[in-house]
Amino acid sequence: MQPAVVDSSNTNDGIRPVKSDSPTFTFPVRVYWEDTDAGGVVYHARYLHFLERARTEWLRAAGFGQQRLRDEAGIVFVVHHMELSFNAPARLDDMLIATVMPGVLRSASFTVAQNLTCAPDVKPLLQAQVRIACLDAARFRPCPIPDYLLQEIAKT
Amino acid sequence: MQPAVVDSSNTNDGIRPVKSDSPTFTFPVRVYWEDTDAGGVVYHARYLHFLERARTEWLRAAGFGQQRLRDEAGIVFVVHHMELSFNAPARLDDMLIATVMPGVLRSASFTVAQNLTCAPDVKPLLQAQVRIACLDAARFRPCPIPDYLLQEIAKT
Amino acid sequence: MQPAVVDSSNTNDGIRPVKSDSPTFTFPVRVYWEDTDAGGVVYHARYLHFLERARTEWLRAAGFGQQRLRDEAGIVFVVHHMELSFNAPARLDDMLIATVMPGVLRSASFTVAQNLTCAPDVKPLLQAQVRIACLDAARFRPCPIPDYLLQEIAKT
Amino acid sequence: MQPAVVDSSNTNDGIRPVKSDSPTFTFPVRVYWEDTDAGGVVYHARYLHFLERARTEWLRAAGFGQQRLRDEAGIVFVVHHMELSFNAPARLDDMLIATVMPGVLRSASFTVAQNLTCAPDVKPLLQAQVRIACLDAARFRPCPIPDYLLQEIAKT
Repeated sequence: MQPAVVDSSNTNDGIRPVKSDSPTFTFPVRVYWEDTDAGGVVYHARYLHFLERARTEWLRAAGFGQQRLRDEAGIVFVVHHMELSFNAPARLDDMLIATVMPGVLRSASFTVAQNLTCAPDVKPLLQAQVRIACLDAARFRPCPIPDYLLQEIAKT
Repeated sequence: MQPAVVDSSNTNDGIRPVKSDSPTFTFPVRVYWEDTDAGGVVYHARYLHFLERARTEWLRAAGFGQQRLRDEAGIVFVVHHMELSFNAPARLDDMLIATVMPGVLRSASFTVAQNLTCAPDVKPLLQAQVRIACLDAARFRPCPIPDYLLQEIAKT
Repeated sequence: MQPAVVDSSNTNDGIRPVKSDSPTFTFPVRVYWEDTDAGGVVYHARYLHFLERARTEWLRAAGFGQQRLRDEAGIVFVVHHMELSFNAPARLDDMLIATVMPGVLRSASFTVAQNLTCAPDVKPLLQAQVRIACLDAARFRPCPIPDYLLQEIAKT
Repeated sequence: MQPAVVDSSNTNDGIRPVKSDSPTFTFPVRVYWEDTDAGGVVYHARYLHFLERARTEWLRAAGFGQQRLRDEAGIVFVVHHMELSFNAPARLDDMLIATVMPGVLRSASFTVAQNLTCAPDVKPLLQAQVRIACLDAARFRPCPIPDYLLQEIAKT
């Protein structure tokens, strides 16, 4: 369990530090034929699906289904920036663990650190830093994350 | 070039026979890593993407972009039924030809026969019979294909 | 629970009837963003992924991981024929149940009936008849299903 | 056309500067239903497919099909690191241009800068920095890029 990243250099623009004792959310992902390529390993873009499923389940566990967020709050979350290190490949039938560790929370975006691991205490197969933006679902323009949602994310 | 299938047994419910000299529409598809699986061949569900791209280009060639159909006519086309024979696998770097041969045209649906081939005069890798339904984009309920579109499809 | 289809008209070519009390194998599938398209519903080819995951888990539950089958028995299972009825669309966040009901078992292939449902006692969103062929993993040629595997499939 | 990035600070470990007049390789990509999600735009992971197709065609244009590289040279190229900025979404029917601009060339890896644009002189929809590693196809371990291939990449 790592402490969340708090961007203390920048405290005047809506950043809310995440609790430093926040547990890492974990979600299991099984590798199927659909995920592999002719190299015999998982196709690199499929890891982004795994990360997205974990973020979706992390939000759901906090009480927020994304279809409902869209229908009721009129917002969608989109990936705005990603940095990805592919350390080692996963293979057919592997059971992976995807993690979500919230980082910096701003008024209209937040970051999460995410890993994919195949076993505890082993270097992750993939490490990702992801910045998520909150958009108005109709116009696809940045819009503030609703307060009740910010509070729940800060709690995770 | 095959003659289109004309369902002459059933002429009272909106069927419009397709011209028997209709040429087969063809569209090239290159196989990339994303399309393959750890078996070393194309993942079976990816062939449906290839078929769908060919249908999309066939409609576009007839003057109908699907985003425009949705925005202006309020309709979407969806696959309602498919029968698929997977005869032989395609592999990384293969250049395939996808075909579209319109069949029976009804008021709210139509069929197409589609093949994927890797070379002329060779048995297709995949043969498909596809029934496409026209739906109201908002409610996802069957709705009639607009007349101007029916006429263009009949011409292809 | 339906009785398995037994092709009694054809008893001389390696067909093994499946026990008529065979339970239907079920596997849950959650719909994520990756599965949907701009029509607001699940992209039609993604249902084939769901069906394949369920078949994989059905084989795994019978004791056969597919990577191991490939490495140790030198075989892969491939889809040889499919008939698919798309009755109604699934949407983001839906939790579906995929079923596997074995049908006719031959020496080098077998059929399964598969459904995707969103609730018990409701017409399935998708109904599929799938014929699976057993191939030599190296040469991709039909080869007999190993006896121990045939026996396990017959038991499911 | 941008000059290639030359890492002049680090000249002793196999880096080969790319010619500064290297043209940017471009490859067209059409957006189909398969690429979109229920947000009405392209699913973020699909952009990685587009980038990979462009890299594949860039290598093919330099004379290197990847299936042949695997069969004859026993190597595969894999993505080792990516940094991605998603600036604006692409939509159904869009025709995008994917670019490949080689950067730093090392003995067992190289970088490329890649963009996806929907029109010239407009800010790219997506900007990517990609590090590609050369692996032994059998063992998935880093191995040197063959000299003839290094020379061709340096020429692009």
